[in-house]
Amino acid sequence: MKPSKPAGTQTATLAEIAREAGVSAPTVSKVLNGRADVSPATRTRVEELLRAYGYRRRRAEASRSPLIDVVFHELESAWAMEVIRGVENVARDAGLSVVLSESAGRLTPGRTWADQVAARRPHGVVLVLSELDESQRALLTSRSIPFVVMDPAGDPGPDVPSIGATNWQGGLAATRHLVELGHTRIGAISGPTRMMCSRARVDGYRAALETAGLPVDPSLVVAGDFHHDAGYRLGLELLRRPDRPTAVFAGNDLQALGLYEAARELGLRVPEDLSVVGFDDLPVARWVGPPLTTVRQPLTEMAEAAARLVLELGSEREERAATRVELATSLVVRSSTDVPPAA
Amino acid sequence: MKPSKPAGTQTATLAEIAREAGVSAPTVSKVLNGRADVSPATRTRVEELLRAYGYRRRRAEASRSPLIDVVFHELESAWAMEVIRGVENVARDAGLSVVLSESAGRLTPGRTWADQVAARRPHGVVLVLSELDESQRALLTSRSIPFVVMDPAGDPGPDVPSIGATNWQGGLAATRHLVELGHTRIGAISGPTRMMCSRARVDGYRAALETAGLPVDPSLVVAGDFHHDAGYRLGLELLRRPDRPTAVFAGNDLQALGLYEAARELGLRVPEDLSVVGFDDLPVARWVGPPLTTVRQPLTEMAEAAARLVLELGSEREERAATRVELATSLVVRSSTDVPPAA
Repeated sequence: MKPSKPAGTQTATLAEIAREAGVSAPTVSKVLNGRADVSPATRTRVEELLRAYGYRRRRAEASRSPLIDVVFHELESAWAMEVIRGVENVARDAGLSVVLSESAGRLTPGRTWADQVAARRPHGVVLVLSELDESQRALLTSRSIPFVVMDPAGDPGPDVPSIGATNWQGGLAATRHLVELGHTRIGAISGPTRMMCSRARVDGYRAALETAGLPVDPSLVVAGDFHHDAGYRLGLELLRRPDRPTAVFAGNDLQALGLYEAARELGLRVPEDLSVVGFDDLPVARWVGPPLTTVRQPLTEMAEAAARLVLELGSEREERAATRVELATSLVVRSSTDVPPAA
Repeated sequence: MKPSKPAGTQTATLAEIAREAGVSAPTVSKVLNGRADVSPATRTRVEELLRAYGYRRRRAEASRSPLIDVVFHELESAWAMEVIRGVENVARDAGLSVVLSESAGRLTPGRTWADQVAARRPHGVVLVLSELDESQRALLTSRSIPFVVMDPAGDPGPDVPSIGATNWQGGLAATRHLVELGHTRIGAISGPTRMMCSRARVDGYRAALETAGLPVDPSLVVAGDFHHDAGYRLGLELLRRPDRPTAVFAGNDLQALGLYEAARELGLRVPEDLSVVGFDDLPVARWVGPPLTTVRQPLTEMAEAAARLVLELGSEREERAATRVELATSLVVRSSTDVPPAA
């Protein structure tokens, strides 16, 4: 979590940084405290030096606000609600309030999101399917504001602590279940391929087919975003094929519900004509007709783990090696999967 | 929004309040700024005088944090997500971040929720199905932190600005739709009777029956909380009766989905054997099978209106009369309603 520093410069005092920047120590202090009354040029120069020296504020704890920040890639669907609830549970026990942001295109007059966070000094930041760029990381690190990535979209790098779920194992379990029911022609709707969790799920699907000695037909794997509409659209595409699959592993529950709609529209019954497996186990999975067989991802527990980890990172004197924790997924069999229709 | 003040005392300066409390002006200032280094007794005495004089901080804007607080009665379900999104939309445009809390039993060491809010000085507070007690109101008012209630649970009183939906009209439209389809035996599952929105919906249901010249059978009206499980449990109760209703107006979409499950369990088809109308129009209403006929409540727009109103209240020099705004509901007819089964 520490940016690289010039060789040999283990530490630099605030006064030394001020001297090198050609400003007064109180000005450096203002920059550190996120005050607005510093010219942009000075601010940039001081920030750069703070980063270069890997300067970490002393007495960080005393000046922290009783807040924990959560940043979402997008703030939508019951998925986000499960995550918010987990962070809120941990925050409440710690006497903290939760600040919520959406990362996508948050441009505020004169201040970026990271500047706002630096100014309000939360106990930590949980990033959900969302990432920091190099300068944002450096800014938070210079303020001793720890951060943890939940369900990293890309590969956050070995130095970023993260919490995820066993996506690959989930894809494997979902597909094995379909294979065991006798399906041999199984499609997959993937989430966005730029997200590692999507890739891992589809790789688990492939591994299940391969270990069962079944052929992997790449044309049966389609990808879209994680919304209902993608499941509907890609579902129609798969189900309209003359050689349509008898079962589909969807990238998440919302896609699975979109697939339900596509099947209804084509007059196909679930599970008699089509078996469907989802991923997430949102509350709605139990409520739809037929109740959805899905891979349970413990979202609330993952969010709790992320929030607890970020508070631990903030309360430790020493830095510790970055952690990657994956919580276990589990297959929940309900009524949307059955043996394939007689040929 | 102003507490009552002793007759004839239009204003009091900070110095006058300090004198009357027997403390220094800086101590009053500390209390106003939510600083911790004031004894509890002094704090209480000063707070009381500030309230009695209806003292409003000058220069409130300059010292505000770029935050807006949202407090939920409970942080659950897609319902809350729609609301959060609305507040987030307005906050983003205003360059503010959103702080989220759950009101139920939030007890943090030494500081109540209201103290935390007073200390962090947001631009405003949006309370969702949640209320402030007398002292919390007074505390926020003394700090010039405006608040707005969205979807008030009880009757917040004429001096509290609030945003709601036309619940009564929604209940009326839902039930009229069922009456027009030919149903004469229509049940209702109500939300919690302590919530005004629940009562208004059921009153609209009754008005529709009465104006159609149909009898109102009180035993066909049952009440529970707003969760899926209540809809399931109360649904079973209604549908197991020998003289079961042919249609049910549910208090919200989650209850309607619980009712779907009860119907499935009893081998009743929706809409052939049972017509169902929900309330809210959460995204899931479109995705279930059959897609749910429901009363659309513009939750995101309501939350946007509440957030905009609270920011307006905060930016005005003058106080204005409290506002009660109700946004229109509208019936969305999908596939869960049809003519009653032949007797």
